[in-house]
Parts: sequence; structure tokens; C-alpha cells
Amino acid sequence: MSRMIITNTRILDIDPAGQRTDLRTGQDVLISGNRIEAIQPTGTADTSHFDTVIDANDRLLMPGLINCHAHVPMVLWRGLAEDASVERWFNDLMWPLENNLQPEDVYWGMLLGLIEQIESGVTSVADHYFHMTYAAHAVEKIGARALLGYAMFGSQGLPMVEETAAFVRQYQGAANGRIRTIMAPHAPYTCDDDFLRAAAQAAQKIGVGVHIHVSETSQQTIASLRKRGKTPLQVLEQTGILDVPTILAHVCGATPTDIRLMEKYPVGIAHAIKTYLKLGHPTAPLLQFIAANLPIGLASDGVVSNSTLNLWETLRLMALTQKEKAGIGEAMPIAQALAIATHGSARVYGQPDELGAIAPGYLADLILIDLNGTHHQPLYNTPASLVYNMQAPDVRTVIIDGQVIMQDRQLLTIDKAEVFAQVQSRMKRLSFLDPEKRIQTYDN
Amino acid sequence: MSRMIITNTRILDIDPAGQRTDLRTGQDVLISGNRIEAIQPTGTADTSHFDTVIDANDRLLMPGLINCHAHVPMVLWRGLAEDASVERWFNDLMWPLENNLQPEDVYWGMLLGLIEQIESGVTSVADHYFHMTYAAHAVEKIGARALLGYAMFGSQGLPMVEETAAFVRQYQGAANGRIRTIMAPHAPYTCDDDFLRAAAQAAQKIGVGVHIHVSETSQQTIASLRKRGKTPLQVLEQTGILDVPTILAHVCGATPTDIRLMEKYPVGIAHAIKTYLKLGHPTAPLLQFIAANLPIGLASDGVVSNSTLNLWETLRLMALTQKEKAGIGEAMPIAQALAIATHGSARVYGQPDELGAIAPGYLADLILIDLNGTHHQPLYNTPASLVYNMQAPDVRTVIIDGQVIMQDRQLLTIDKAEVFAQVQSRMKRLSFLDPEKRIQTYDN
Repeated sequence: MSRMIITNTRILDIDPAGQRTDLRTGQDVLISGNRIEAIQPTGTADTSHFDTVIDANDRLLMPGLINCHAHVPMVLWRGLAEDASVERWFNDLMWPLENNLQPEDVYWGMLLGLIEQIESGVTSVADHYFHMTYAAHAVEKIGARALLGYAMFGSQGLPMVEETAAFVRQYQGAANGRIRTIMAPHAPYTCDDDFLRAAAQAAQKIGVGVHIHVSETSQQTIASLRKRGKTPLQVLEQTGILDVPTILAHVCGATPTDIRLMEKYPVGIAHAIKTYLKLGHPTAPLLQFIAANLPIGLASDGVVSNSTLNLWETLRLMALTQKEKAGIGEAMPIAQALAIATHGSARVYGQPDELGAIAPGYLADLILIDLNGTHHQPLYNTPASLVYNMQAPDVRTVIIDGQVIMQDRQLLTIDKAEVFAQVQSRMKRLSFLDPEKRIQTYDN
Repeated sequence: MSRMIITNTRILDIDPAGQRTDLRTGQDVLISGNRIEAIQPTGTADTSHFDTVIDANDRLLMPGLINCHAHVPMVLWRGLAEDASVERWFNDLMWPLENNLQPEDVYWGMLLGLIEQIESGVTSVADHYFHMTYAAHAVEKIGARALLGYAMFGSQGLPMVEETAAFVRQYQGAANGRIRTIMAPHAPYTCDDDFLRAAAQAAQKIGVGVHIHVSETSQQTIASLRKRGKTPLQVLEQTGILDVPTILAHVCGATPTDIRLMEKYPVGIAHAIKTYLKLGHPTAPLLQFIAANLPIGLASDGVVSNSTLNLWETLRLMALTQKEKAGIGEAMPIAQALAIATHGSARVYGQPDELGAIAPGYLADLILIDLNGTHHQPLYNTPASLVYNMQAPDVRTVIIDGQVIMQDRQLLTIDKAEVFAQVQSRMKRLSFLDPEKRIQTYDN
């Protein structure tokens, strides 16, 4: 098993409860294969015993960030659905644009988005999209970690549950375990009860979880009550979805009753604040979720609503908007925001004992951050700088599963120019817009 | 007069009314001395006639950003007042910390902050701080543009009006006109009516404007009504401040009556949204300000509340929070946000016919932006990328007053390492905290 050592680094220990952080300087991190073996003071290990030595040069080492809800290949349409309401965004823009999608587009879009993620220190992504065998090949190729769900709508009929379940079975544990899979019905508003029940049963049978959009806005909660007599979360409960580990995307429209309901199930909440702001709707009641001990993780959502896949931005916007929502500057303090970015995201992603921390036995998904930029000077407060000052290019080196993927901003596993060229060659076809040819209709 | 040409660039023309943008490719920009002489298609000028030729390599050329309200030297305390209410921020943290300030600290703090600004494409700043002769020397040294106000509190007594007026007289037009000056009483809540009246009279007499904090929160408006029977803006009106061109910082607590009042005077509003969010209070009613045709400009405020001096972040947060406040994704569209970042900021800064646009006769304050990064790909929508995707390091080259200040990320006029070292050597003394020794007390 190959061994790596990262020497002379700083490590920020983040309390999982979000109460405090502690900075340790002068540390070496020893990696054996794809896992962290030990952490010890610099100078105590003989570096000649390692296959790879990375001199961290006093950079800060952090766990790679985890994106808990995305549609990575949607980078293909970046910038094509701006300044729109939710209704117009779905019906006039996104769902007609997706009518142009061909399977191989997913491979190149996934690669482009994974490059953007790696360049900003995101090492894992819970992705929810179409043609996911192509996405899996992209993840395998570039060396990333992913939890892949093959999105499906109720209108596609029950055979689609079987088809996506086949993907889930086939790719579970692929790419040396870097790929995990999950069932991915789109949302209660696009799947009827029978369809959701079938998806839950398939997940139970295979032994995986579910990743689904739910209560994206209060309007959806109101529409669900009107149409079905139940909130979207009650629909998930009654169709058995919540009996398996479930990633709930957004949940901005959760009622107090919904929060008590969620407490009883193995759920995690993916939070994509930039999308909510861009679409002009209020954020989620995160402080109530935290009070109920519900796990929260950072998410980018798709680039067509979020513009980028940069989780530093999600982290910052999350803390800022929760302060404003609470009306007090003390709300969502720095340690709590960082706990969500690390431990919380690992819980939502479903690997809380292997990701989101730097500790022996954890997977070696690590990023080296340069805090010497002017925008961090003078550096009195490292945790504050991580939440409020970070720029994506401060991430210099990225390691996933014990493999160096980006070294001092150079990607080692992919030909970036080829990916750019492939995506650019598809722009004209993919941007054709005929609102009559949408893949679904939004009516909430 | 030295002549410069920037060849093969893209220019985004932004409608001052915020209705549209237009992208022109393949342009050359000719600069004579410190002003733009002409803009013409690439290939039509003989580059051998120019002292300096910058091949823009198809980069986007924009006017330098203008920071309409800052306390740049406060970078000295970056990260030392986090997760605090307004009251605690002033009384327990910032005002005690400022008790440690010595005049020469302002020189080095100003330089550090100007470096951060230049590295993110900010070429002008309306700064409001203490010991401003030191700030002026820093501006002159690095080659930036600034509108400097020497901050004063009513508690310092009327002689302080004379002292700061002397600064205003002395430095008006300094550094070949790059420095302009302005009277800078701190705020209605720290200056009584007589003091404000004296400041207004001094500004009238010298022929300059006033830069002041006002109605930072609704609580301040309520407190002012209780104590003085007038809103903070009515106080400014009745003491004569609004009779001169006035930069109003924040104005989040403006009432509908205040908006009608402002319409009658030569005011501009500086908007520093990240500060408002960090302190947990609601943003300003910008859409009502726009409806009243009040000029709005971007601002960073001080780094101790805002964390950075990055106006791309202000731009993005402004648009996102106005969408959320309005409850519709269509609010504050991209062209409108960009008009505020350029024309609007130039109006607030007081040079609407010389800054904020790329046109013949305008000052040559220009930045070259690289839109080839992964986070802009594929580039369907340049204006959207500027508002929602930009990272400060995408700014590659900065020209101020016809002089190249940063070329492909290398600073040409300053020794950055020396500035860092000077600031770091002051950290211990400057961070000493004794809440009993505050320079003022906040009570609103």
C-alpha cells in the first residue's frame, strides 16, 4: 500500500457540535493507501519511508468539502436562466433546455463540473441527474468521490424505478468504493404516491437511501396541502421514503410539524442558499433544524440556479443569511458554520465516520489552503477567514482517496482543455430553446 | 504625454439606466496621459505609435470598481470582531480596539487595504477614517484614486471641524488630482446639531461635499425620533448637510418620508450589504431608492464588519438579497446590478462624467478580467458571470489614471512583502482590548 506524508501543516479541529475550533500548527499527516494513518508533530516521522512527500509549507489542511445536493452536468447551461421566478425558471427555461440533453453530454458536463469542484476544494458530491452511467464514468476518470442518484419523474412510469434501481445496484461501490449510489425520485410534486412508494421499496430492497427534493418553498407546502391534504414531508413519510436514509434537498418550506416529523427519521438536509436567493424565496429555518439536531450539509444545487459549484460561497451565504433571518449578529457563529461545512455535510452525505474530519481511520480526502493572500492579512482569526474571506483559488492542492488530484492548482488526472473544448462544441445544440418541448411542467 | 494602447479586448457597455448591456469584441482602447482617447476596432491603430502596448488577449475590459464607503485602514483588525451585535461590535470590540491606533498605523493599514482593493479590481475609494494625511500618503504612494474624509465625532468639539477642514483644503486635488477630499462627520448619533451645522458650513465654504453614516438601522431611526423628534435624515436636512453633495452610508433605516426627502438633495447612497448581513440587520430598500432615481454605489465598509474589501462580493450579495427581499427572482436584474457597480458608483463618488465607463474623455481607470476560468465555462452570459461567478483573482491587470498598477497579478508600485511585515509587526499592540478605553459609546 502506498504511503504519503503531508509535512509542516496547520490543522483546524472543528467541534462537531459547532461550539469551538482549535488550531494546531506544525503537524504531519501520514496517509496509508486511501486512509489517514496518523497525525503527529512535524519532525517526528522519517520522510524517507514515504512514497510521496508533500511539504505543506505551513498551509492549512482541511477535509475536502462535501456537496450534498447537486446536478453537476447542468453546468452545460451556465448563465441561461437568469433573473427568473421559479415557475419561469422551470417551465420556460430549464425543462425546455433539458429536452436537448443527450447521454454523452452528461459525461462532459459532469467532468467540467467536477473540475470546478476540485479547483474549489470540493472532493465529494451527492449528484442527482440523468444518464448517470455517464456521470459515473466521469467520476471514475477524474478520481473524485460521488454519491450518485439517477433522477426520475413519476410521469416516466414505474419501469423507470426498475431502470434506475439497476444503476444503483451496478455502481454501488464502483471506482474502488469512491462511488456510492442512491435512489433519486425527483420530488413529491413530480412523483405520485405509488411511484414514491415503489422508489422507497427499491431502496429498502437494495439497502440504499433516497435523495429527493422536498418543500423547496412554502408555496409548495401550501400547494401540497391543497392537492393532497398533506405537507410534502408527510407525503414522504406516508410513502415510506423516510424509512431509509434520506437526503432532503432544500426544505425551505418546512412547517414546525414537519420539523418534529423529520426528527423521527434518518434524514439529512442539503442547503443551497444561493439558489434560494437567486429565485427570490426565503431561506430554510436552519436554526430550528439545528435545535432539533437535524443534520445539515452544504449544497450547490445546479449551476443554472446557483451559477457556480463553489461551496465556500454557500458556507458564507448560509451564515450571513441566517444572521439576517434571526436579526442578530450572534446567530450561526463561525464554529457552527464550519461544523456544518465538515461534520454536518459528512452526516448528510452518509459517511460521518469516514469524511469531514482529519483523524486516523478517516478517508484521505484533503485540501491544502493558502492563507497568505492579502484578503486574509493580518491573520488573527483563521476560522473567520475560512467562512468570510476565502476565495476558491486559495485551495492549492486536493487529495481524494489518497490520490493527489490537483497539485498547486495543476490538475493531474484530466486534460482540462479537452473538457472545455468538448463542452463548447455542444453549446449551440444544448442552448436551443423551445418552451413547447419541456420535459416536465411545474405547477405549484 | 505618454500614450498607451490596449489591444484586442472585449468591452461590455452597460446602460446607465440598468436596462441592458452590450458586448463588443475585438476592440482597441487608446489612452493618452490619464484619459481614454478613443475606442476602435482592433487592427485600425498602428501600435508602434504608443509607449505602452497591452495585448488584452481577448480579456474583458471594465472600468475599475469604485468603493463608495470604506474605512480602509481597519484591515488592521481583520477578524477581531466576529459574530457580534451592532452594540457589542462598537462598544466591546471596535471602539476599544481603535483606542490603540497610532497615526503611522493608518499609513500601513491603508496600503494593505489598497493592495487588497487593487488585487480585486477596485481603483477608487471614498474613505472615511482618522489621521488622513497618512492615508493620503499611502494613496499617493501606490497610485490609487481616493476621496478622503477625515472622520470626526461631536465629542471632539468644534475645533475638530477646523482641523479636518484644513486637511480637506490641503489635499484637495493632490497626487495629480487622484485625491479629492470631503468633510466627514461620523454620524448624526455621534454628532449634535451644532457640530453637523459647522461641518456643513465648512463644506460649503471650501466647496466640497460631506460623507456621513446615516440611518444604519431602523433602530437608529426610531432612537432618533425618540431623542430628537426627527429621523436621522431630517437631522441632516435641518443642519444643512444635504445642501452640499453628500455620500450617505447605509441608509437601511430610511422611511418612505426619508426617501421623498432625499429626492430633493444631491445625495448618493453607499451600500455595504455584507456588513448588514454580518450584523444581522435587514438590507436597505434599494428598489425604492431606484424608483426615486437616487444614485446607489457599491461599498465595502470596514473590514472589521465586512471581512474583505472585495466589491464583487458586494455586487453579488446586493443583487441576491434584493431578490429575496422583493420575493421574486426577477428583481434587481443583472443589467441593473452592473449599472450600480459602474455608473451608479461613479455618481455617488462624485465623478459621473469621468469614472464608471469606458468612453473617450473618461479617466483611464481600467481593469482586465480573465473569463477563461472553469467557473465561467461555458461562457454563454458574460454579464451574468460578472455578477454571479467572478472571483477576485480573475482581475489580472489594473490601470489607474493611465498608469499600470498591477500587471497580470504582479503589483508594480509597491513592495507587498514590506507592507505585510509592517502590518504584522503591529498586530500585538493593535489587538489589545480594554472595553473601558473605548473612543466613543454606541447607544441607539
